[in-house]
Amino acid sequence: MKFSQYLLNDNRVARNSRTLHVIGKLGMMVEKKLRNNHSRPVDVIHTAKVHSGRISLRIDKFIMNGNIIEKEIVEHSPSVGMIPVDRHSYVYLVQQYRHATGKSLLEIPAGKIEKGEAPEKAAFRELAEEIGYTGKFSLLTTFYLAPGYDTELMYLFQCTDLKRVVRGQLDDDENISIKRMKMGTAIRRCLSGEIQDCKTIAGLLAYSAQKNVTL
Amino acid sequence: MKFSQYLLNDNRVARNSRTLHVIGKLGMMVEKKLRNNHSRPVDVIHTAKVHSGRISLRIDKFIMNGNIIEKEIVEHSPSVGMIPVDRHSYVYLVQQYRHATGKSLLEIPAGKIEKGEAPEKAAFRELAEEIGYTGKFSLLTTFYLAPGYDTELMYLFQCTDLKRVVRGQLDDDENISIKRMKMGTAIRRCLSGEIQDCKTIAGLLAYSAQKNVTL
Repeated sequence: MKFSQYLLNDNRVARNSRTLHVIGKLGMMVEKKLRNNHSRPVDVIHTAKVHSGRISLRIDKFIMNGNIIEKEIVEHSPSVGMIPVDRHSYVYLVQQYRHATGKSLLEIPAGKIEKGEAPEKAAFRELAEEIGYTGKFSLLTTFYLAPGYDTELMYLFQCTDLKRVVRGQLDDDENISIKRMKMGTAIRRCLSGEIQDCKTIAGLLAYSAQKNVTL
Repeated sequence: MKFSQYLLNDNRVARNSRTLHVIGKLGMMVEKKLRNNHSRPVDVIHTAKVHSGRISLRIDKFIMNGNIIEKEIVEHSPSVGMIPVDRHSYVYLVQQYRHATGKSLLEIPAGKIEKGEAPEKAAFRELAEEIGYTGKFSLLTTFYLAPGYDTELMYLFQCTDLKRVVRGQLDDDENISIKRMKMGTAIRRCLSGEIQDCKTIAGLLAYSAQKNVTL
């Protein structure tokens, strides 16, 4: 069986967004359990903040296996990424200049979770801001973008039953153009190297594996 | 015609080889500048290094669409990620404590590219260090891990025809245990939320989509 057919054929798996929602909640419970099981198996002996801003940087010293380790940690808010799919199986992506890379990249809509904001609410807000749509949101999964040194945890949502809303206020550094394309085209661009953003590749391929998207 | 060829083909230009060499270099410099201008559509008006270390942090001020933008950029070496698959379709993953997340995560082997090192050589070195195998490497794709604020570009390799070698010297902060599992199992863990590392999800799903992995 192709891996993309697996979830649809597996009777433990999501067949509608309600089930996906439940699976998402289950995922969070598993995550919490794992978190508790593996809660920081190190003793932090010193921590120093090097910079505070939109992102922050701290240096931790901790003991692991008898060694003293010094490690820079980038602190970034948790975030949301959205896969907005319309009833014709078109996905909405955003093309924007990314100064860290010196390039303009094609990505799923995404953004920071504000302090105290629920992930679902952030997904709702960011989708309106970036592409001017709202819809029905359900959590697909969560992942860390660069867990070797960065705290950012992204909540990945699928968004269906899309409806247009007034496009919200973009941040000053957002310079976005909206690209609507067939999901199959987006997947091919993930596999060919045209799409160069990791969360977009992970998100679109995970979505299409679950939905059995044909190219 | 490329700009560097234009200069060489222009009959007003000197034709002795020394001059051609200089003109050729000049053309390439102009081309590079044009290319950079094209790919970096902003004028950086100020840059300040906040921290230099294993990772660095700088703050750039630049003008985009008439606005002055100030942005923190995390500077991280380019890196390699490897998908080592044996002839029984088992993949080797590594489980390690990731202090930025406070958790132990299951990931593909990965590591930094050293200064001046070719990506293939880094993949070869890191695979030996982390899991004690060598093999045949081929590049699947490249992606940015967090392009919104981080320069890290990862080269993703598949590694086949695996052969055991002496496992290399790990870094002090690497605390790795090796997990060998069926590729199908790894894919299911990417889709269920058990694997929480974005590069691992993107990498394993891209590999499986290209190879038509069966579960």
